[in-house]
Amino acid sequence: MVTSGIKQVAADETQNESIQKLLFAEGLVLENGQKLNHLEIAYQTYGKLSSAKDNAILICHALTGDQYVTGINPISKKPGWWSRMVGPGLPIDTDKYFIICSNVLGSCMGTTGPRSIRTDHQKIGYWGIDFPAITIGDMVNAQKLLIDHFKIDQLFAVIGGSMGGMQALQWAVSYPDQVYAAIPIATSSFHSAQNIAFNEVGRQAIFSDPDWQNGDYWRYGVIPSRGLAVARMMAHITYLSEDALNRKFGRRLQETMIDSSSPIFGEMFQVESYLHYQGSNFVRRFDANSYVTISRAMDWFDLSQAYDGDLVNAFSQVKSRFCVISFSSDWLFPTSRSRVIVKALNRVGAKVSFVEIVSDKGHDAFLLDEPDLDHVISGFLAGIKRQRQLENNAS
Amino acid sequence: MVTSGIKQVAADETQNESIQKLLFAEGLVLENGQKLNHLEIAYQTYGKLSSAKDNAILICHALTGDQYVTGINPISKKPGWWSRMVGPGLPIDTDKYFIICSNVLGSCMGTTGPRSIRTDHQKIGYWGIDFPAITIGDMVNAQKLLIDHFKIDQLFAVIGGSMGGMQALQWAVSYPDQVYAAIPIATSSFHSAQNIAFNEVGRQAIFSDPDWQNGDYWRYGVIPSRGLAVARMMAHITYLSEDALNRKFGRRLQETMIDSSSPIFGEMFQVESYLHYQGSNFVRRFDANSYVTISRAMDWFDLSQAYDGDLVNAFSQVKSRFCVISFSSDWLFPTSRSRVIVKALNRVGAKVSFVEIVSDKGHDAFLLDEPDLDHVISGFLAGIKRQRQLENNAS
Repeated sequence: MVTSGIKQVAADETQNESIQKLLFAEGLVLENGQKLNHLEIAYQTYGKLSSAKDNAILICHALTGDQYVTGINPISKKPGWWSRMVGPGLPIDTDKYFIICSNVLGSCMGTTGPRSIRTDHQKIGYWGIDFPAITIGDMVNAQKLLIDHFKIDQLFAVIGGSMGGMQALQWAVSYPDQVYAAIPIATSSFHSAQNIAFNEVGRQAIFSDPDWQNGDYWRYGVIPSRGLAVARMMAHITYLSEDALNRKFGRRLQETMIDSSSPIFGEMFQVESYLHYQGSNFVRRFDANSYVTISRAMDWFDLSQAYDGDLVNAFSQVKSRFCVISFSSDWLFPTSRSRVIVKALNRVGAKVSFVEIVSDKGHDAFLLDEPDLDHVISGFLAGIKRQRQLENNAS
Repeated sequence: MVTSGIKQVAADETQNESIQKLLFAEGLVLENGQKLNHLEIAYQTYGKLSSAKDNAILICHALTGDQYVTGINPISKKPGWWSRMVGPGLPIDTDKYFIICSNVLGSCMGTTGPRSIRTDHQKIGYWGIDFPAITIGDMVNAQKLLIDHFKIDQLFAVIGGSMGGMQALQWAVSYPDQVYAAIPIATSSFHSAQNIAFNEVGRQAIFSDPDWQNGDYWRYGVIPSRGLAVARMMAHITYLSEDALNRKFGRRLQETMIDSSSPIFGEMFQVESYLHYQGSNFVRRFDANSYVTISRAMDWFDLSQAYDGDLVNAFSQVKSRFCVISFSSDWLFPTSRSRVIVKALNRVGAKVSFVEIVSDKGHDAFLLDEPDLDHVISGFLAGIKRQRQLENNAS
């Protein structure tokens, strides 16, 4: 584990487990001009940073993810969210690479977000709904502070799925010299009207919960659990393909009746029970204000926006090698969105591989047992490692 | 307008406008065995029933539809939901055909449903959440009573989109001799796991609203408007294609800021504003208990279920001519579902035409300006009319 001269802050008081995090006393100027005076970044590392500091891979997590990529998540006591991908001898091999994953700005697993205490204001208390409107660019700029802390000049790779893929793209655009390779998976260079619409319905479900208390729910000792569960249930449908749902659940009923006195809901379909579980489980681990903040950051994401709406222009300075990966049954960020990215990268002559993996698992395929994804990632990493050696030998 | 020997009941006390409806004092035995002792059916007719009673077309409405197909809806004061399709000289021509549309069982526009007063119980009051679990088959059996009231031996056609298409299919299966032709549009022979999942999230949004009051909200003088609006917003996304949303709204912002004090929601995307409008508008016109009841009836729909899960078997007795219509961008009931229907009809040697209309308008295309749909419907109706004349001349 890395220690540093920068102050290592104590464990978050809201968690039983210690959370590894750093305080960046200089703060962070956000893209909207506002300054966060106090920035903490919670992160995990796996593997060993080489003396040349040339084997670092930054993994960027998705909307409701966290920094516990592999091993056992100390909060949930369950395996990390990508433990099938990251570890010794696995496609992202911790025997070879130094893996960094930080909780994104605005989240609730230790990095500064709505659940943090604001220090820049006469009103002492949680940020709550007053937390600034952050962007994917802000998340990346916060990660850059962490990478600088490690004195890493160039990341060997930035990898992420879904919102993590947005960060990977943003890294390659914002810091072209610092990203040797980027692997954006199941992602998009912009949030579409439909993406925004689904997010907005989720937020409205949260806002409709009387326990939302206009975002001040902590003060009342409640959480908007019903609204947050509805938001999660809806989002969960968008993460799975129709075929996967048919295969897993079809029209099968739960074996026992739920309530024999209810004419309509005495019986329940298995898919309903599954969604209820997803909803209630999520409420225990995730904060509603963070959900609102991060989902909004995704809505704002449009890589071309700062470049007159021209994605080719956005990519004009990139130097990274790209491996763009989509899944055939992903309807949240369908393959057509990856093609938009690939075409724009081709237009600027970037080095880009593109793979559409045939899978019926939908958007969530990047988190699931999908051997083709393993092969593509391990193959791409091995290839660019050889390539960099050749480049280094030539220079 | 038709009058009859059966008692014509007074206007629903909850509506200012008189609603044309019939009381069926014999009631209705539901598919679950329960008996509704008191059945009222609200309906509208357009055009004139021929003396041979051979020009009747039954139009079946969708989940949140009503009997006001064309002309001005007396409740909303807006044009009927299919006024572009039904009228003099239009594809479903009221100069030629006698159009019947009844509000479905379980709805809230005059036909018996959760908002009706129950008369079979010591507890006087609205049915509310105790309204029986009804099915698409029950809706069709109620419509059959209305058709019998008109002494129509055979409907020239049964036409409907979405849940209306389910009814058209059910009619052809339940009453093979009474349906000369069926036009199921943008529909399915079963509700899939994904369909059920979306419905369930909508219901959970309603149940999460404190004003739901376990379905007894009328007693408290409230309606679960926030939950019902969220349910509608979510459903509305499923009615439109991603391309249509991109075309209509893209990532455009509302021109004026909503709230300059809100860091996150000071600005709003046009698609969000549109969804808010859809949600709040819906709450004014539709009842939450009816939404729960009817959405559940859709979930239960699987035409093959009573036939050992074999759709071919379900269709084995059909005699109707079918025109099955789907839309290329409908992802709620995609073309593949129509193909399932067509293949099963082919297996029993039924007369079936199948048209996939290329449209970017999604599921709602059947309600929108889609000239190809007009041509297909008017062409099919003209064709089967000629066919029936030939058959009649031959016999």
